[in-house]
Amino acid sequence: MYEGVLQDLIDELARLPGVGPKGAQRIAFHLLAAEPTDVRRLAETMLEMKAKATFCSTCGNVSQAEQCRICADPRRDPTLICVVEEPKDVVAIERTREFRGRYHVLGGAISPLEGIGPDQLRIRELMGRLADGTVVEVILATDPNIEGDATAAYLSRFLRTLDLRVTRLASGLPVGGDLEYADEVTLGRAFAGRRNAGD
Amino acid sequence: MYEGVLQDLIDELARLPGVGPKGAQRIAFHLLAAEPTDVRRLAETMLEMKAKATFCSTCGNVSQAEQCRICADPRRDPTLICVVEEPKDVVAIERTREFRGRYHVLGGAISPLEGIGPDQLRIRELMGRLADGTVVEVILATDPNIEGDATAAYLSRFLRTLDLRVTRLASGLPVGGDLEYADEVTLGRAFAGRRNAGD
Repeated sequence: MYEGVLQDLIDELARLPGVGPKGAQRIAFHLLAAEPTDVRRLAETMLEMKAKATFCSTCGNVSQAEQCRICADPRRDPTLICVVEEPKDVVAIERTREFRGRYHVLGGAISPLEGIGPDQLRIRELMGRLADGTVVEVILATDPNIEGDATAAYLSRFLRTLDLRVTRLASGLPVGGDLEYADEVTLGRAFAGRRNAGD
Repeated sequence: MYEGVLQDLIDELARLPGVGPKGAQRIAFHLLAAEPTDVRRLAETMLEMKAKATFCSTCGNVSQAEQCRICADPRRDPTLICVVEEPKDVVAIERTREFRGRYHVLGGAISPLEGIGPDQLRIRELMGRLADGTVVEVILATDPNIEGDATAAYLSRFLRTLDLRVTRLASGLPVGGDLEYADEVTLGRAFAGRRNAGD
């Protein structure tokens, strides 16, 4: 609908996830009015990210070097590995400052609907990291949904043969939430996972 | 939270309108996984748009040349000018295929709250286009809201001195809508603008 280059840009932007045609139009007009240096910086940052960002050869997290900052940090506990689906999950857990071990990013969860089986996940790499016996506990921190639970169940069966502790993050009521608004599955899990008061 | 270049890109993307931090993260991971040629094309289209897109010297619409396609088209009726706020409005009206005249893009609407007065709009340019007497009707197609109505009222007072017809787009019930769901202002306007049945 717009002339040449502007429409080309709208078409390109509309392909990005969560943007859509209206959002693409809005961003394109924003860039049209923006300072040329700002637009250039955005385009160059995009190309630089693509050229430099890679994945950590140990944990599979996004990294700018062969090893990510966490795997390269000698202060992180090498006896604990927290298994997550995506790099975003590493960021979420780091934000809690509760975990001082290392991570293993699977690159997704088992999902027959999307055609993702165990072979598409970085499970072989995880087994490789467990081979030398340094790790004493694997924390399964996949998402608390069908795919994440299935992946955790698969992994815990797989890891049972090894001499280590395998744990799963607790499911239950979100802190600060209202009990009456909790969905029945969450409330059911909160019951099943109840602990002695005062622990 | 992410390493170097990825976080830089998330920060840049989060500045775009309607994107926000979560959306920026999602787009950045999409680009991380995308083909390098696709990312390059997006970045280059952005720079090309910035280098080539300009505004039509006649109507103020976005254009790739000194005159936009509509102003340069000899088949468009030179006696009709439709005044709109933004280039998006030109696209919306073109989509109806109802209007075969030309446009004038004001670049916004009068809005004391945002500090936009008549001097910030392309009103002088509009007067220049009306000087030679070719135009017989000016259609005020500013938005049907407070700012758009104020702008239309201002312009119609301004244009009253000239020997031409000044019209405003009809306000009323949207076609395909339900009368009971119409807001009272729209319904009030629909009453005020009622026409003889069968016209």
